[in-house]
Amino acid sequence: MRLTLAFAAACAATLAVLPASPPLHAEGLNIAGARIVDLTHAIDRDTIFWPTEKKTFELVEEHRGLTERGFFYAANRFCLPEHGGTHVDAPFHFAKEGKTVGALPIERMVGPAAFIDVSAKAAVDVDYTLQPADVTAWEALNGKIAPGTIVLLRTGWSSRWPDKRAYLGDDTPGDASHLHFPSYGADAVRLLIARGVSVIGVDTASIDNGPSKDFLVHRAAGAANVIGVENLTNLDQLPPKGAWVVALPMKIAQGTGAPARVIALLPR
Amino acid sequence: MRLTLAFAAACAATLAVLPASPPLHAEGLNIAGARIVDLTHAIDRDTIFWPTEKKTFELVEEHRGLTERGFFYAANRFCLPEHGGTHVDAPFHFAKEGKTVGALPIERMVGPAAFIDVSAKAAVDVDYTLQPADVTAWEALNGKIAPGTIVLLRTGWSSRWPDKRAYLGDDTPGDASHLHFPSYGADAVRLLIARGVSVIGVDTASIDNGPSKDFLVHRAAGAANVIGVENLTNLDQLPPKGAWVVALPMKIAQGTGAPARVIALLPR
Repeated sequence: MRLTLAFAAACAATLAVLPASPPLHAEGLNIAGARIVDLTHAIDRDTIFWPTEKKTFELVEEHRGLTERGFFYAANRFCLPEHGGTHVDAPFHFAKEGKTVGALPIERMVGPAAFIDVSAKAAVDVDYTLQPADVTAWEALNGKIAPGTIVLLRTGWSSRWPDKRAYLGDDTPGDASHLHFPSYGADAVRLLIARGVSVIGVDTASIDNGPSKDFLVHRAAGAANVIGVENLTNLDQLPPKGAWVVALPMKIAQGTGAPARVIALLPR
Repeated sequence: MRLTLAFAAACAATLAVLPASPPLHAEGLNIAGARIVDLTHAIDRDTIFWPTEKKTFELVEEHRGLTERGFFYAANRFCLPEHGGTHVDAPFHFAKEGKTVGALPIERMVGPAAFIDVSAKAAVDVDYTLQPADVTAWEALNGKIAPGTIVLLRTGWSSRWPDKRAYLGDDTPGDASHLHFPSYGADAVRLLIARGVSVIGVDTASIDNGPSKDFLVHRAAGAANVIGVENLTNLDQLPPKGAWVVALPMKIAQGTGAPARVIALLPR
């Protein structure tokens, strides 16, 4: 059979109507060809925690140097609150009947990403909250958000990390009553929950915005067993759709949250 | 164009010689259709650490119950050594010039899995170490191990978790001199390093076996910037090849190791 590009194109068009194996539906991605982007801040002494946390990240050196048998060996232990740095909020964080980290279904931590960028609006209003109209505008361009989607909201705030005052709006120790930063709005999250999303993530310190006192987004997400992810970074590298996200928390059985490593897999 | 299966098959054979888009090379996997298996032990009071660790996992409740504003809220902080439970060994753990957790390239944490099962040999010899002949026998059946592969070694020991005495061979506090469990052997690991593997994982407490005193596997892996993963579980659910693994440690900047969430993506 003589091979020509025209023939190959005809073949491809024909094969497209056959069931493919493995399935390659619209949201699929071949992991072998994917470009990987790390959406996680490193954890160190500068990691930002909620202002009411009395203790933050502490690394204690247990050994560093030669052992008596003559080889190098280093090991540490560490302490931190569950809710700081890039981390997951389990539903139990704000919902008494919600799941703890250890009980979260692993299938909810892997999914196609819907990337929504409100950085232009947040640049004008530091307390901006995502509105239902932002979601429907995104859907008009990119298609309806499917069940199992991982929503990633970009405000642009990760560029302020790790400057606590710039990132949180206030750096008074122990005081969380004067915070300013953008995030999700409760009505938009109710719409996303109705769509069946698995995860809502953001590049600020909370899935509720800075001035929030009643944490309606946390409570709505928790009640629906939707996972929150906070303090993401590198979201500017994502396309509106087509990427897949893997958001894996440390598996703390009784955790209300946990440090997470979050990556995006992008089509080449 | 009339569609027949024979024609479609001819097309498929023809297209196979063209560059595919997205690439679908032999080790590819469509993430959309994958079955996900969690290879991670949950972290709780029973989590096994190295016997010389004086402190293990501690979860401190910071809040649990109604706030003054009337909604449920729960949060904890926690402490643990880097090396316990399902976790990553960074090369720096045993190699002074090796990378810390925060410096590990994210691309090395995602890769095709080569699953090697020595549980039958370990059932006879509790200190069994993987031999070069085990690797070449696996390759004779499954093909040469490619650069970037994540090797997962099953000994069957995860079924003993969290019984410290059964899992480590000895549960004397503070004493690591009488341990017994199987793992990698140094010659086999040198062969795997020569193949260019990214990660070596095992379902026991260490990538060196229990009686090891000089930790030759850790030192060889560290010197080659190969990542170790210890205390895996559910490896019996993996095929010899065809799965992909995502092994994501908590991003401790200066970590010699870190708790990790490790999952396998399996073709359906």
